[in-house]
Amino acid sequence: MAGGEDLKLLGMWASPYVLRVKLALSLKGLSYEYVEEDLVNKSELLLCSNPVHKAVPVLIHGGKPVCESSVILQYIDEAFAGGGPSLLPTDPYDRAVARFWAAYIDDKMLASRKASRGKTEERAEGMKQSLVMMETLEGALRDCGKGKPFFGGDSAGYVDVVLGGLLGWVRAHVDLEGVNFFDPDRTPLLAAWAERFWSLEAVEPVMPDVSRLVEFGKMLQARQAAAAAAGGGAGN
Amino acid sequence: MAGGEDLKLLGMWASPYVLRVKLALSLKGLSYEYVEEDLVNKSELLLCSNPVHKAVPVLIHGGKPVCESSVILQYIDEAFAGGGPSLLPTDPYDRAVARFWAAYIDDKMLASRKASRGKTEERAEGMKQSLVMMETLEGALRDCGKGKPFFGGDSAGYVDVVLGGLLGWVRAHVDLEGVNFFDPDRTPLLAAWAERFWSLEAVEPVMPDVSRLVEFGKMLQARQAAAAAAGGGAGN
Repeated sequence: MAGGEDLKLLGMWASPYVLRVKLALSLKGLSYEYVEEDLVNKSELLLCSNPVHKAVPVLIHGGKPVCESSVILQYIDEAFAGGGPSLLPTDPYDRAVARFWAAYIDDKMLASRKASRGKTEERAEGMKQSLVMMETLEGALRDCGKGKPFFGGDSAGYVDVVLGGLLGWVRAHVDLEGVNFFDPDRTPLLAAWAERFWSLEAVEPVMPDVSRLVEFGKMLQARQAAAAAAGGGAGN
Repeated sequence: MAGGEDLKLLGMWASPYVLRVKLALSLKGLSYEYVEEDLVNKSELLLCSNPVHKAVPVLIHGGKPVCESSVILQYIDEAFAGGGPSLLPTDPYDRAVARFWAAYIDDKMLASRKASRGKTEERAEGMKQSLVMMETLEGALRDCGKGKPFFGGDSAGYVDVVLGGLLGWVRAHVDLEGVNFFDPDRTPLLAAWAERFWSLEAVEPVMPDVSRLVEFGKMLQARQAAAAAAGGGAGN
């Protein structure tokens, strides 16, 4: 890995947004210092570096903070344009298509996260929307990928990293909810893509331990159930 | 204006997202064909060009559609890099800062739009959040602008265009809700920025008629009140 870049990543191990940044740094072959944040008791460095959102990930490069995962990914691509493969393609139209799908995944992730904290029917609707998202992405891989192994073409790029950040939680959901969002019968291209992406040399060592995500997910579910019970169990 | 670019914009006159694209095209000096969409009865061209969201704006360049306003703005900047001023700065860190603020405005706009369709207390909370956003942007203009007239520095850029798309509705809200989001007492830099941006030669002719926005806003409010009454007037 290239060194001496003075890169520090403030993260939280289970965050799919932080994972995106780890994936991008790894694919670009950049070394960095990783700092795990306690989100219940945030560090002064995090609060100073991201005063607007007070959230991870934050990438600090030469003392200057960059916040928000999609902004960080594009920053990494532009600031280290000479090192490692590009995440975004060169052609402006292809770049727009990649940005479109990345924004689509972001929107759906946000909606799904909100739904997961809601009532039973909201969670069911969120689950349905996540399945629609996967079918739409299957179509994107078929139509835009043109038979290539990745959204980025012959190598993993921007959309692969954005979607790849979710992969640990997709696998954890099989245990947590009994749902495989990347079902090979429903979305065969996406299921094959997930296997291919996960097993990349630059990806596998960065991926979270799925059993640990499952434990973490169960703890969150228990906490949510307790909060719902305390609030009168509305909708549950 | 530069011609012969084969650019077509599918839009809706009152949309702040469409206005962003009009502003970018105007600042870049690009000519285009504008097609007003009837969003109740969407055209085949819109449905084919943006099958995922079925929404405006869509910019069609040489027959190829680009969707989502922030994606379109960056596409315009990259596809027409040689023509007109750049919207995004050159330095990777400055580009990241601009993208951060654009994403911030987008997030808050989305939250505020959702709140405006909600119950009385949700609308009040949405209004409060919008005021917080303006104060945060006042700080951004003070700290990042370093005394320059625009978010983009000496000339209007990406963040100016993203925020500028809202200006018509900001002025309409003075009549509609009795709230001036760009109050010169509370956010003097932002209020001065708004005057300066609106009066730019490339901006003024593109801006919507505020009295027409007020009429349109009243119609939406009446429709919402009728829907709330039909639904039992929940929360009103």
